[in-house]
Amino acid sequence: MAKQKKQPRPKAVTPKGFRDYFGAEVEDRRHMLDQIAGVYHAYGFDALESSGVETVEALGKFLPDVDRPNDGVFAWQDEDDTWMALRYDLTAPLARVYAQHRNDLPTPYRRYAMGPVWRNEKPGPGRYRQFYQCDADTVGTASMAADAEICAMLSDALEEVGIPRGDYVVRINNRKVLNGVLDQIFGTIEEVAASLSTDNPTGQEKKDAVLRTIDKFDKVGAEGVRELLGDGRRDASGAFIEGVKLAPESIEPVVQFLTARGSTNEATLNNLHAAVGESLVGTQGVSELRQIADLLAAQGYGPDRIVIDPSVVRGLGYYTGPVFEAELTFEILDDKGRPRQFGSVAGGGRYDDLVARFTGQAVPAVGVSIGVDRLLAALREKGRLKDTAKGPVVVTVMDRDRMAEYQSMVAELRQAGIRAEVYLGNPMNFGNQMKYADKRHSPVAVIAGSDEFEAGKVQIKDLILGAKIAENATLEEWKDRPSQIEVSRGDLVAEVRKMLDQYDG
Amino acid sequence: MAKQKKQPRPKAVTPKGFRDYFGAEVEDRRHMLDQIAGVYHAYGFDALESSGVETVEALGKFLPDVDRPNDGVFAWQDEDDTWMALRYDLTAPLARVYAQHRNDLPTPYRRYAMGPVWRNEKPGPGRYRQFYQCDADTVGTASMAADAEICAMLSDALEEVGIPRGDYVVRINNRKVLNGVLDQIFGTIEEVAASLSTDNPTGQEKKDAVLRTIDKFDKVGAEGVRELLGDGRRDASGAFIEGVKLAPESIEPVVQFLTARGSTNEATLNNLHAAVGESLVGTQGVSELRQIADLLAAQGYGPDRIVIDPSVVRGLGYYTGPVFEAELTFEILDDKGRPRQFGSVAGGGRYDDLVARFTGQAVPAVGVSIGVDRLLAALREKGRLKDTAKGPVVVTVMDRDRMAEYQSMVAELRQAGIRAEVYLGNPMNFGNQMKYADKRHSPVAVIAGSDEFEAGKVQIKDLILGAKIAENATLEEWKDRPSQIEVSRGDLVAEVRKMLDQYDG
Repeated sequence: MAKQKKQPRPKAVTPKGFRDYFGAEVEDRRHMLDQIAGVYHAYGFDALESSGVETVEALGKFLPDVDRPNDGVFAWQDEDDTWMALRYDLTAPLARVYAQHRNDLPTPYRRYAMGPVWRNEKPGPGRYRQFYQCDADTVGTASMAADAEICAMLSDALEEVGIPRGDYVVRINNRKVLNGVLDQIFGTIEEVAASLSTDNPTGQEKKDAVLRTIDKFDKVGAEGVRELLGDGRRDASGAFIEGVKLAPESIEPVVQFLTARGSTNEATLNNLHAAVGESLVGTQGVSELRQIADLLAAQGYGPDRIVIDPSVVRGLGYYTGPVFEAELTFEILDDKGRPRQFGSVAGGGRYDDLVARFTGQAVPAVGVSIGVDRLLAALREKGRLKDTAKGPVVVTVMDRDRMAEYQSMVAELRQAGIRAEVYLGNPMNFGNQMKYADKRHSPVAVIAGSDEFEAGKVQIKDLILGAKIAENATLEEWKDRPSQIEVSRGDLVAEVRKMLDQYDG
Repeated sequence: MAKQKKQPRPKAVTPKGFRDYFGAEVEDRRHMLDQIAGVYHAYGFDALESSGVETVEALGKFLPDVDRPNDGVFAWQDEDDTWMALRYDLTAPLARVYAQHRNDLPTPYRRYAMGPVWRNEKPGPGRYRQFYQCDADTVGTASMAADAEICAMLSDALEEVGIPRGDYVVRINNRKVLNGVLDQIFGTIEEVAASLSTDNPTGQEKKDAVLRTIDKFDKVGAEGVRELLGDGRRDASGAFIEGVKLAPESIEPVVQFLTARGSTNEATLNNLHAAVGESLVGTQGVSELRQIADLLAAQGYGPDRIVIDPSVVRGLGYYTGPVFEAELTFEILDDKGRPRQFGSVAGGGRYDDLVARFTGQAVPAVGVSIGVDRLLAALREKGRLKDTAKGPVVVTVMDRDRMAEYQSMVAELRQAGIRAEVYLGNPMNFGNQMKYADKRHSPVAVIAGSDEFEAGKVQIKDLILGAKIAENATLEEWKDRPSQIEVSRGDLVAEVRKMLDQYDG
């Protein structure tokens, strides 16, 4: 103790890029994750919780030429010099777990995971260095039934947490269809590989440039993509972006792919079929989408919930087969007060080299990740959160010697399912107790001094009404309602319940 | 890709001292924590979730003479050279959060927190470097009503998760009472400080030795403590442990304190009153215990649930006032097959210098921490865990082209609240599907091929019965029960439900 005093006091600050979550923020998230877990569980997915710490080797972030792992992760050396790091997502640990335990795990292995991940990145507004992820993956099957199942489960999960049908849509695309389109333009991978030369970088490099351009489809639309695949495009700021300089007959199939969505899944699939021509991989991609669409239709998941939509481009670079995205279709106001669609809250797709890093064997897998914070924000926006924000009933303390009686009151209230607490600060100043109740967002305060105890009475004060009267004292509807009433001690629970019920529903 | 192949494959291993949790292990824990959170919430405690990462400065683990933090924590340097670390408990972050946000938080601040903490310690059997804690604390009040409330809440939480009344007891002691006893022997702190000399280390050092001895009371009992406070003690292995060499008249008050528990709280308090004599702090300690006992009695928490017990010694060195411990009193078999009490699953007490490190102002606080893993183990032992371990009903695939129909079956089962999944592996080998169902701990398999589809039938197979028959084929009670029956497709859900219900309750 004496030693410590020589040092300056430590600063009480959240580390840069991290934040604290209080009260309802925590409880709403936990409640939502519990609901999602319930859906995943019902679908036969098993929970997996790996630790926050992995070896850097297992995460696959170790760069061979430097002696420290790269900046994306928080890393340190263990006493035996092993580099350890905080996981940056839930997929890398799944790969490690599956490779490690594959002989004990069922095949296919359906697992879900939810928990914090850490990114050693520059924090920004709303971007934190620790945040939640919530994933479900099926490892070890190439069956399109797995992809269809995950889309159906995602749809169910969104409805379970409170996004009504009609306010969301799960859109499905397939990387293989795009590959088919690109094969039509550039030739197959094998042909490209054979023709590659540094003097004439038309092959893979151009293909990559097309992929990057497609990724901008969300922002620039079909015409923008057409320009960017051709000579180039002048953006809103007036800057000119150089184009990929494809010939017009190469541009059109790409645009045709992106805009292939028809009025029905059948029409969309026919359009895609036309776009991929003779390409083997493209035809396979269309067939995969057809299988998914058929399975979903047979289970009653119509295009109002899940739809084939080739304009989904997020993840097309990363995934190897079907990709999907859940979008919320209701409108919110953006920063400038303009209405816009809420947008994406989940995404996923099929990827094949998850486990191969460890075992050398490719293992097909498909998964989805729900953006926990965005989905919570959407539920808040829609007023769909459980009312956990409601503060407790506060029983004030007028007579310190009667603490046991105040405690009995809160015990009765709690037994009736009403959140309640006794004021435990210094009771001398009653104003402080009211300020405390205000900070607690208490809907009701209970007040009893010696007069009330002698008369077998208790005062209950409607703090919500009190606040409304304070806001606008002349408001007709409040004028005649007393904000504080005296009731029999025996009616405490019933009367508090009545007061609370006014503000429910 | 080409570059990566030059490196050896990474090893798929859990980092040393960490572990993966699968399925029911995760779900049981989450369910238990949700139940505890519900109790804490009802008592007016607010959730707090701080990040896993804190500055080392805030954690208070930085040793001034070394350039790396000490070994208890996982730590690294941020790019601006700030030392960061994973939190090692939930109390240090609470201190930081309270100091940082104290102007916005209510006073007193009741908060609960649950989540992983990390310790950079040598792992051992059952000792991991990441584990869960589950804490509730009231910061900013010296009122004994806060201590009583936390004990009552702990009792409620244990019953809520499934520890029946009679199978646990919350025992309360008070450091101040011990201080009073020690003052009787050594004089008050002030007197000790005045008499301290390096030549004659009788004061504080002996006091510390007495504290360490008291900590062994659990193991060695009253007679052992008497010997250890006197000349010394020969333990079971024959080794002689040197004693503190107190005079017999100094030893007796300590033993009197430890064995002060009477047949009622009143008797215990009277014994303690006698043990502390004229000591001011001791008298205050007894008065605090009396307040807690009175408050609890008034709310109906009798000694069958919460009891004053001076033999509680854990934490007496750390806490500054009341300390408490929840013990499970039912017996389990130890490693050697001998019955023993399950023991402690939670502990807590009052501590006062939580926030002073940051602000210079002492803030009184009291809290409890539930040992999540131990409590889970106890519930497992008592068979009180929700039946989350039960695997899903597996719908097998006899005809790959009928996948949509199999999917409809699982959808119907799920809509009826029955966990169900379709086999998504290669359906060619039916034996593999049965092995899969076995690995999934499936209670029931559903089987339908073209014969069944044509007849509008489906086979359902009781896998639990199947396993029992396999174990002991002659067992009379199973003999006449078919393990596989054919039912109408329309009765699928009802018949599966009937089969599952046989094994419930």
